Amino acid sequence: MKFYIKKDLSELKKMKLRQRMLKDSGRKASDLFEICVFDPEKVGKKNCENLIGGIEVPVGVAGPMDKLEFYDLGVEQGGEGDYQKSFDLIKEKRKLLKQIIFPLATTEGALVASVSRGIKVLNSSGAARCIVVKKGMTRAPVFKLRSGLEAKKFCYWLKMNFSEIKKIAEKTSGHLSLVDLKTWSQGPSVFARFSFDTDQAMGMNMVTIALKQVWQELVSAHPNVELISISGNMCVDKKASALNQLLGRGYQVKAEVVISEDMVKELLGVSVEKLALIHYWKNVVGTNLAGSNSQNMHVANMVAAMFLATGQDIAHVVEGSQANTIMEKRKDGLYV
Amino acid sequence: MKFYIKKDLSELKKMKLRQRMLKDSGRKASDLFEICVFDPEKVGKKNCENLIGGIEVPVGVAGPMDKLEFYDLGVEQGGEGDYQKSFDLIKEKRKLLKQIIFPLATTEGALVASVSRGIKVLNSSGAARCIVVKKGMTRAPVFKLRSGLEAKKFCYWLKMNFSEIKKIAEKTSGHLSLVDLKTWSQGPSVFARFSFDTDQAMGMNMVTIALKQVWQELVSAHPNVELISISGNMCVDKKASALNQLLGRGYQVKAEVVISEDMVKELLGVSVEKLALIHYWKNVVGTNLAGSNSQNMHVANMVAAMFLATGQDIAHVVEGSQANTIMEKRKDGLYV
Amino acid sequence: MKFYIKKDLSELKKMKLRQRMLKDSGRKASDLFEICVFDPEKVGKKNCENLIGGIEVPVGVAGPMDKLEFYDLGVEQGGEGDYQKSFDLIKEKRKLLKQIIFPLATTEGALVASVSRGIKVLNSSGAARCIVVKKGMTRAPVFKLRSGLEAKKFCYWLKMNFSEIKKIAEKTSGHLSLVDLKTWSQGPSVFARFSFDTDQAMGMNMVTIALKQVWQELVSAHPNVELISISGNMCVDKKASALNQLLGRGYQVKAEVVISEDMVKELLGVSVEKLALIHYWKNVVGTNLAGSNSQNMHVANMVAAMFLATGQDIAHVVEGSQANTIMEKRKDGLYV
Amino acid sequence: MKFYIKKDLSELKKMKLRQRMLKDSGRKASDLFEICVFDPEKVGKKNCENLIGGIEVPVGVAGPMDKLEFYDLGVEQGGEGDYQKSFDLIKEKRKLLKQIIFPLATTEGALVASVSRGIKVLNSSGAARCIVVKKGMTRAPVFKLRSGLEAKKFCYWLKMNFSEIKKIAEKTSGHLSLVDLKTWSQGPSVFARFSFDTDQAMGMNMVTIALKQVWQELVSAHPNVELISISGNMCVDKKASALNQLLGRGYQVKAEVVISEDMVKELLGVSVEKLALIHYWKNVVGTNLAGSNSQNMHVANMVAAMFLATGQDIAHVVEGSQANTIMEKRKDGLYV
Repeated sequence: MKFYIKKDLSELKKMKLRQRMLKDSGRKASDLFEICVFDPEKVGKKNCENLIGGIEVPVGVAGPMDKLEFYDLGVEQGGEGDYQKSFDLIKEKRKLLKQIIFPLATTEGALVASVSRGIKVLNSSGAARCIVVKKGMTRAPVFKLRSGLEAKKFCYWLKMNFSEIKKIAEKTSGHLSLVDLKTWSQGPSVFARFSFDTDQAMGMNMVTIALKQVWQELVSAHPNVELISISGNMCVDKKASALNQLLGRGYQVKAEVVISEDMVKELLGVSVEKLALIHYWKNVVGTNLAGSNSQNMHVANMVAAMFLATGQDIAHVVEGSQANTIMEKRKDGLYV
Repeated sequence: MKFYIKKDLSELKKMKLRQRMLKDSGRKASDLFEICVFDPEKVGKKNCENLIGGIEVPVGVAGPMDKLEFYDLGVEQGGEGDYQKSFDLIKEKRKLLKQIIFPLATTEGALVASVSRGIKVLNSSGAARCIVVKKGMTRAPVFKLRSGLEAKKFCYWLKMNFSEIKKIAEKTSGHLSLVDLKTWSQGPSVFARFSFDTDQAMGMNMVTIALKQVWQELVSAHPNVELISISGNMCVDKKASALNQLLGRGYQVKAEVVISEDMVKELLGVSVEKLALIHYWKNVVGTNLAGSNSQNMHVANMVAAMFLATGQDIAHVVEGSQANTIMEKRKDGLYV
Repeated sequence: MKFYIKKDLSELKKMKLRQRMLKDSGRKASDLFEICVFDPEKVGKKNCENLIGGIEVPVGVAGPMDKLEFYDLGVEQGGEGDYQKSFDLIKEKRKLLKQIIFPLATTEGALVASVSRGIKVLNSSGAARCIVVKKGMTRAPVFKLRSGLEAKKFCYWLKMNFSEIKKIAEKTSGHLSLVDLKTWSQGPSVFARFSFDTDQAMGMNMVTIALKQVWQELVSAHPNVELISISGNMCVDKKASALNQLLGRGYQVKAEVVISEDMVKELLGVSVEKLALIHYWKNVVGTNLAGSNSQNMHVANMVAAMFLATGQDIAHVVEGSQANTIMEKRKDGLYV
Repeated sequence: MKFYIKKDLSELKKMKLRQRMLKDSGRKASDLFEICVFDPEKVGKKNCENLIGGIEVPVGVAGPMDKLEFYDLGVEQGGEGDYQKSFDLIKEKRKLLKQIIFPLATTEGALVASVSRGIKVLNSSGAARCIVVKKGMTRAPVFKLRSGLEAKKFCYWLKMNFSEIKKIAEKTSGHLSLVDLKTWSQGPSVFARFSFDTDQAMGMNMVTIALKQVWQELVSAHPNVELISISGNMCVDKKASALNQLLGRGYQVKAEVVISEDMVKELLGVSVEKLALIHYWKNVVGTNLAGSNSQNMHVANMVAAMFLATGQDIAHVVEGSQANTIMEKRKDGLYV
């Protein structure tokens, strides 16, 4: 049995051959695997090697959310100026999104229903608000020098060459803009965490390509520097980390709403007090005792279903699971 | 636009109606959403509410892995006895699995190819070894009492009633066996982490049902105890945590192999020294600096693709991302 | 300048010689260093090499605390039995301590005053309660075997030989009782965390001696095992860790009290609401955001001052800084 | 028994009165408490309330370290410029310290001897190198606004007023220089972490005073802002945290040396291979498994003894315990 087939066949033919191999070997492959609605020629070459078919995940829809007040403040990280100007900037950035729907790919019964109920609650509360507070796809190569002193000098050197690095990186794609660089050094090593505005794209591959170019054109010429890996795990990619919680990766978002006490009671069947109590003991105390810093209920479920429905890399659910919920009883209801 | 349709239509009809609504509202839903190979009647009732279609993810296959030495030592956690007996037990538990293939659902080009290459390396090395070192699906309700002293007494009471709890829980399913209980108390609260052998199933829903029954039949009668939540986030479900790393959740597995120096060179195109170096600076130093405890390359990618291909809840990729790699250069090659 | 003096002089003489060396080298040693009230002969041989004098830290006293309800439940960790029996046990363990004073060695003005004010608050509230919930001085040697499978077998073997290990360990001191053993294995390594009741002593040296003996008499005979280090950093000694938070080290204690609203107002000059608010945003939200799991105000200050005043190893302040505070507004006041 | 004595007596008299109270109450206070070499009048007023005496800790001396190459690069965090300039800057910052001795206050036998042996090893290796890589005493007030959007605006506002804040803060002390400000917002809260160069002082009190002034003169005028606490636990003070590891607090230092293989063998009685092995399994693997990010042997011991001998606040040993060791076998010996 050899799934990698060299012969000059179409991807569809190769897929069929593989399906036959599986059957001949007595394996009960689910029927789902053998049917595919996508184009095997394209997918087999670009997205998935050794194609044997497809698995279909049902997609449900939650919503529509009537209104969402949306602010995209990601890359403007302040600077000197006057308060009025900044305030205006924020006003300018305000968008009122309407009739938003959420496709959710899942086989976990109750998830779509549960999100739908949540949206019903939000709709009862006027507009919820969503703010992109930070934006930046990061990649952190790790380099090695001969000593900690050299490593520290190299950190300076990278920062001094920021404009040059920016120029080289941005040549590799019209969608890239280098916005930040932070460096750390441990022993003779340097971890340089570059952060890019990647426009509408998730952009992880783009930034990797860009930094490889930076290495070749500029950094490799630095004396005594060795590139250990284009990713040094301080990106931090697909691992939960305090670093991403503190400094962000991709889109860092905060969302807030005040829900009236009546609506909590009517739609969620629970009092505001009880909800705040559950949140406190479960999300705050339980999470902390467990040695975790992700104080939320089950955000990973929604993130996973939306990433899957919209074709995102689902391994990023790991970073998506890092969220913190605040709940506060107020005079006009429950602030979340 | 209201996606929840009450009328007594078939799920297929309701799905078609929803697809029409989306179109009428001018939304460009991808074609994929409208076709489905699964049975909408079953899926719409059980797995996914407000069905609008399905999304198909291509599945590739990696393997076959020629041989795998497999040990399922999960629930036998030692005990008093003689070394010979335990050794025999381990021998008995040894299974030699052959010709294993790995279905991977993904759209990330290179993933299947990359796993395939890994399997090629393993095949060149004789059998790799995989050991289930711990097994137990956990659920940790959080309770509240009136004081920390009462809470501590309640911890004792739960432990004293272990057999009774076990009896009630196991009545709810023929596949359940309660194997462990650990308790923590913070202020007046108690977090009781129950661990079950759930047979072949992932079993999270089963254990939740079982513990609800335990609450109703037994625990609710305890004076002054309030059930805050059937999950108190010390399970720990879909969040990265030190607790799961230390005490395990689901299957805790270790895998090992020694790869010859030549094969590393030939198949991975890198020397053993260089590989160990990359592992050290990236996975060990980088991860630690980032405030993470998951010292691995990219295990989340494989876990996500396999969970998706085999119908597992993909939000569990979060826990699946917590893995630690050991690399050691030895006389006979690279130990991983 | 050579501070290690071999000549057969008294410790006092050697100390004087060293003081002279310092002076001759032009160093302005503070006067405090040159005077000592302890016995140099004893101290120089046992507690501090290369003695040059002593540093004196002022000691203040806080208290007396009128009453403290104290429970020492440390080693009885439940087991099967009836609730009544356990309840009785707890009643038996109850002690009412009276007129307790706290010596605090510190140069940080306001610390003693601040603790004194706290005790005043406690005295106004009837007895506070203190419960030792877990007790056990731990030491976790790390061993290395040839493979992960051997390592796992070795974990079993250690557990099977618990009684034998206990016998050998307890021979080394009349104050030792081995109460628990937990094992972890990463690659070919084994971390075995032994936990001892060390009677009134802190006992870290005792347990180290005991485990060295266990190694020599028993464990070193196990085939292919290598002792890497008698402490494998899973003890966890003098480092903050999730492990100690979850499984305890030394004395794990919870303390609780309900303070009347009036007394909070009168003695602390703040409302219960405001205090709970500060606690929430600072200790809960701030700590979590900072990537820490120690949700407390400043417990390290008190621990440091008491350890110093009572002659404890002050580097253990690190573990002592890991504490979590719960605050809850109740009808009868503030629960802390 | 009331230790707080209002009467207009000298501190010495009050101390004597308290000592008598203790004796009369039948308490066996150690003799040490009753003698003091410091001036009670000064100390009782400024450093320690309710004085009852002093405790003396023996001080030993380790060293001298022959040579130390020292770089104080703390506040220059790069910027645009040319490599040569930065390199020159580093050369300028180089100082060769000679004949350094380390006073260590401890009662833990072997500590001074052990540090002395370490220095002997360093002396055998030419000059060790020590680099201050970051410098900044931090204080992070937590504020609350009415919404997350307001909170985010407030973050901008603080950054826009950096110069004004700097001016006000620096007026409060001639030793202060505000060098950095980072903000985080969770729900309606804002954590603003200010970082100061505090000259030769540890400076925690200075920066607190400065920020109180900033609040009063400037920030309190911002609409709808409430100061929750002048420290919001993101400083992070006396708690171990990922934040301090990533962004530093106080002096962040790296030290390095290459020790010849022969000297490791001769002075430490162990081979370089064995030492690296112990470091790897204990400090790297063990620490990570324990859910800690402080990969070191026992740095807290040295930090505690030096802080105590030099009059530093010993509760800061907590932050001082966060260190990471790198060990690497090289051709010319062991890099640490």
